[in-house]
Amino acid sequence: MSILVVGSVAFDSVSTPFGTAEEVLGGSGTYFSTSASFFTAVNLVAVVGEDFPAGHLEFLRQRNINLDGVSTMAGRTFRWRGEYGYDLNEAKTLDTQLNVFAQFKPQLPEHYRDAEYVFLGNIDPELQLEVLKQVVRPKLVACDTMNFWIDGKRDALLKTLKHVDILLINDAEVRQLAQEANIVKAAKAVLAMGPKTLVVKRGEYGALLFSAHGVFAAPAYPLDEVYDPTGAGDTFAGGFIGYLASVRDDSDAAMRRAIIFGSVMASFNVEAFSLERLRTLEFDEISARYRKFQLLTQFDGLEG
Amino acid sequence: MSILVVGSVAFDSVSTPFGTAEEVLGGSGTYFSTSASFFTAVNLVAVVGEDFPAGHLEFLRQRNINLDGVSTMAGRTFRWRGEYGYDLNEAKTLDTQLNVFAQFKPQLPEHYRDAEYVFLGNIDPELQLEVLKQVVRPKLVACDTMNFWIDGKRDALLKTLKHVDILLINDAEVRQLAQEANIVKAAKAVLAMGPKTLVVKRGEYGALLFSAHGVFAAPAYPLDEVYDPTGAGDTFAGGFIGYLASVRDDSDAAMRRAIIFGSVMASFNVEAFSLERLRTLEFDEISARYRKFQLLTQFDGLEG
Repeated sequence: MSILVVGSVAFDSVSTPFGTAEEVLGGSGTYFSTSASFFTAVNLVAVVGEDFPAGHLEFLRQRNINLDGVSTMAGRTFRWRGEYGYDLNEAKTLDTQLNVFAQFKPQLPEHYRDAEYVFLGNIDPELQLEVLKQVVRPKLVACDTMNFWIDGKRDALLKTLKHVDILLINDAEVRQLAQEANIVKAAKAVLAMGPKTLVVKRGEYGALLFSAHGVFAAPAYPLDEVYDPTGAGDTFAGGFIGYLASVRDDSDAAMRRAIIFGSVMASFNVEAFSLERLRTLEFDEISARYRKFQLLTQFDGLEG
Repeated sequence: MSILVVGSVAFDSVSTPFGTAEEVLGGSGTYFSTSASFFTAVNLVAVVGEDFPAGHLEFLRQRNINLDGVSTMAGRTFRWRGEYGYDLNEAKTLDTQLNVFAQFKPQLPEHYRDAEYVFLGNIDPELQLEVLKQVVRPKLVACDTMNFWIDGKRDALLKTLKHVDILLINDAEVRQLAQEANIVKAAKAVLAMGPKTLVVKRGEYGALLFSAHGVFAAPAYPLDEVYDPTGAGDTFAGGFIGYLASVRDDSDAAMRRAIIFGSVMASFNVEAFSLERLRTLEFDEISARYRKFQLLTQFDGLEG
């Protein structure tokens, strides 16, 4: 089952203690689509400027990502510049140039409108709702957001959240959205806003899954080489929703497996700058790392 | 199999966003012993001042903790004052009064010297080594330390670590000890210093176990009420070593179960100030929460 995703396609310039990358392929839509494409077909809605290289589009197309919803506008592509210190959990944004993204009015091609799985990447919640209105009857709607929208467009965000099944945000965002410091209480408050499922991304500390079924906790994969965490959250979401769409199952057991697939995809992505690691990744490697997550987390019961 | 533990017995004054506690029972030796006592008998080595209430000693005695190694010296008991903000992972120390602890020269009673399981609580690494020298032939030596000793008594600490089987410290301390930001690389460096096993405590993010067998990651139990994290690390260590001593097994499988028991004990301890929660805790509750950790972490394999 294909996934409809709306998000940014961008040039990122990133500096970490391990190196720098200038104007490389990035953006939430790009990371999500590429990650999800390992599990299912993807229909991408985004905008790029006239400066966007055909080679990048070709890379996405070859990954079974439909680009009929990607429009090219006069002007420059969205650009983000950020840096990380040794604490790779937190990016410091140095510069954001919206460029063509400032005029982005997502229009879904006709053949996108019957999408069953939808991922609303981290964009203006009003635009997220606009996209959702153009989908006839989505089966599962997942959504990301950030402190900028939680703070600046709270009402619009709350309106969008009423139509969202799964919200994927980081722990600081959960606390900010719920206005509650305790993560368990904050999660309960968020689940009362609309989403039936909340995925709390915690960077190198893993992820939590909250729903009516209870809580599931997954660690991040301990890596001895982490070069660039940019896009890890969207890569996680791509693996998570990609897996769910591929099995057409939203049971608690499937959600738990999806969390592990999301964690697997994110763990590969941070091993190199931009999407470099995902370019060479094979599904065998994904399966092998899934099994390593089992070894990482398993322990005997009391009778074991 | 009983455990020998050396550590502090103290009065703590703690302030958190949820309340305050003045001059309540605390100290690494106290938390460790009480937690371990749910699994096995404990022999405690510590010092208290003349102001220490008999009632506190009686509480420890009733928990099957042998106090023959606890000496009473002229002067006041060790006192610590600290506060926590909403980020309960980090205590801010407001005042430390060593008092009788400044003259602490641990002397083991004769019947303590054949101990097989030893826990060296977070005290001067020179004193830790002194204690160890008084034990005839320990089977398993575990140790805690902190930034103060890593920075100020590095050589003495490295000397002690050569005789330690299991080091239990937090992630910042691992990075500081190894002088390496990446936790996987840092763990490898620490394992080259002597310990065969490293337990990395990460507060609300759980714990990691590193050894020649690989890595094990356990989450912390998500709690909707956390009142006071004081003593969580020592309570964790008490459950961890207490379980290992009770089963006389140091296999990887036993170590993993021990991590969960440590996490269970810590999760109870933070539910109230001082050792209040441990005072009323029953082993049935410990078993029940161990099972909840299974529900919290389990996911199907790829063929599931």
